[in-house]
Amino acid sequence: MTQAPETSRNAEKTMLRALRGETLARPPVWLMRQAGRYLPEYRELRARAEGFLDLCYTPDYAVEVTLQPIRRYGFDAAILFSDILVVPHALGQKVWFEEGVGPRLEALEEASDLDRLDPAALHERLAPVYRTVARLSRELPAETTLIGFAGAPWTVASYMLEGGSSKDFAAGKRWAYGDPEAMQRLIDLLVAATGDYLIAQIDAGAEAVQIFDSWAGVWPEAQLRRWCLEPAKALVKRLKAERPGVPVILFPRGAGLLYQTYAAESGADALGLDTTVPLGWAREVLQPKVCVQGNLDPLALVAGGESQRAAVETILRELSGGPFVFNLGHGIVPQTPPEHVAQLMEQIRAWPGAGGW
Amino acid sequence: MTQAPETSRNAEKTMLRALRGETLARPPVWLMRQAGRYLPEYRELRARAEGFLDLCYTPDYAVEVTLQPIRRYGFDAAILFSDILVVPHALGQKVWFEEGVGPRLEALEEASDLDRLDPAALHERLAPVYRTVARLSRELPAETTLIGFAGAPWTVASYMLEGGSSKDFAAGKRWAYGDPEAMQRLIDLLVAATGDYLIAQIDAGAEAVQIFDSWAGVWPEAQLRRWCLEPAKALVKRLKAERPGVPVILFPRGAGLLYQTYAAESGADALGLDTTVPLGWAREVLQPKVCVQGNLDPLALVAGGESQRAAVETILRELSGGPFVFNLGHGIVPQTPPEHVAQLMEQIRAWPGAGGW
Repeated sequence: MTQAPETSRNAEKTMLRALRGETLARPPVWLMRQAGRYLPEYRELRARAEGFLDLCYTPDYAVEVTLQPIRRYGFDAAILFSDILVVPHALGQKVWFEEGVGPRLEALEEASDLDRLDPAALHERLAPVYRTVARLSRELPAETTLIGFAGAPWTVASYMLEGGSSKDFAAGKRWAYGDPEAMQRLIDLLVAATGDYLIAQIDAGAEAVQIFDSWAGVWPEAQLRRWCLEPAKALVKRLKAERPGVPVILFPRGAGLLYQTYAAESGADALGLDTTVPLGWAREVLQPKVCVQGNLDPLALVAGGESQRAAVETILRELSGGPFVFNLGHGIVPQTPPEHVAQLMEQIRAWPGAGGW
Repeated sequence: MTQAPETSRNAEKTMLRALRGETLARPPVWLMRQAGRYLPEYRELRARAEGFLDLCYTPDYAVEVTLQPIRRYGFDAAILFSDILVVPHALGQKVWFEEGVGPRLEALEEASDLDRLDPAALHERLAPVYRTVARLSRELPAETTLIGFAGAPWTVASYMLEGGSSKDFAAGKRWAYGDPEAMQRLIDLLVAATGDYLIAQIDAGAEAVQIFDSWAGVWPEAQLRRWCLEPAKALVKRLKAERPGVPVILFPRGAGLLYQTYAAESGADALGLDTTVPLGWAREVLQPKVCVQGNLDPLALVAGGESQRAAVETILRELSGGPFVFNLGHGIVPQTPPEHVAQLMEQIRAWPGAGGW
């Protein structure tokens, strides 16, 4: 695979300019899970697919689903439609999605189960995802940035060890505290596979990548450093060495105070802020070092009306004086009225200073 | 009701000395949910009760369950065995516990449902809890501090609005964002009822109180201030005015950076730290202002062995140079081996400097 060329067209996209540290009069905007169940056109297509993984692995479906919110709202970025669990699936773990339950996996139970994971077939199994990226790269509007993504090693590991979602992460923590060598082996394997996967997405046309560490917020500091921050640093370092110029967004959800450590040490171009990150602190402490992305409460977008308008304005006022990408603090929820998203876009487009680019 | 006298005996208890700002050579220790399912003697008694609420409302049961971990481990504090949902129950809301599911409530659906809540019968319905407190006050060892408790208004409100546990707090946030006046009415009602309830516990013999805001960590800063911090301040202010000298511990779980604001503004004597709060920051930023309590990962206590020992030592080293109460960062989990708790107690008792009191 060869390095993605940095075209002059790419360099002009607002999303990439913000990720590279530029302050824009009107910040670029996209929403986590912008392609999803809140859209009637998504639900219609979803009903035709055989299952959720079928949607991810069929480029015709995945391309269409990725494009739906771009057509409707004109977001500045499109994120590849896929799931973080395609990586364990491609490593040979059994993964399926149960309606109303969520993801299910045949959980790894002991260290010897790691031997069953096989990175050799990774690219072959993920080839449909790369085809989706390549098609999106051609079909997206010229001004829209294509974001590739993967789950962070700890977050993906937690699903592999729990067999699904978890309330207390008992299995993941049993490994981390009880057999840290086995846990390290799994994390290292995921750092390598995730790096391979993201590089292939970049080579297929992804112009930036986001790494989702949705469950970073469950650890004491020492464990967060070992299982979340260090793997993130290793991933960013490899991406920066092998595909320089492609911005990396890290989303260590729930990292709290340690967002500061991510800003100082991770090497990422941008940090996704969860809903709880105080805006004044983000502006003073994080934004001088990295671009920040976030962080409207997805439930404020469900409520709509004046509370949505006021929350959006506060975020714009606090963060648009530095490198900033407007987003939610977590994924959009299925019960979000699509017209509230339209109102959000209208408000951001009318933000004082618009016309500055 | 009259004010609880501050006896000279009370003033000597290590737990109260720490809460009042004293640095002790060996910190006092208790564990959230120390009376609970990880203990075989609890499970045995639980099987005899008709249901979980029966356990809370029958002083013979509640006293015995509260004393079990004190007998076994000699913790420095005993926390009343009860549940935060007795308050909505005493306000007239239907509350029940489903085996394997957790708490269930007949959810409040609209603002007019608030009219059905009736604070008039609060003390009559909670009288068995006060009898439990009074009996514990007589039966506990002289050196053991009796802690009363209640849920914080937002956390209790979230159960009242969701009808149980929640992943995204959609109902609570729908009220807060969509009808903030109704939400404020509910919160104000809970501030009043919770204050009445805690004062009655103090008058029955509770020597300190802890207010659990388990779901503080789901809000943007502005909302956390309105729905968590302000109600906590109002509660602390009332307790300090009406029952001076009784220490108040706040546990705003997940407050992240805003722990600093709680330390500066809440008026609480102590803050319970969740597992994610970095120890160095707690020592430098929080401990100069308040006593801190926490914050071992409950899952480290499940794993046991060297990782437990190392985690406990790190906490002792970082926090025992100031006012400090050893605890977990969240409740003990049912799968915790009781012998790991014994090892924890042994390690804390052997902590260098022990014998200083």
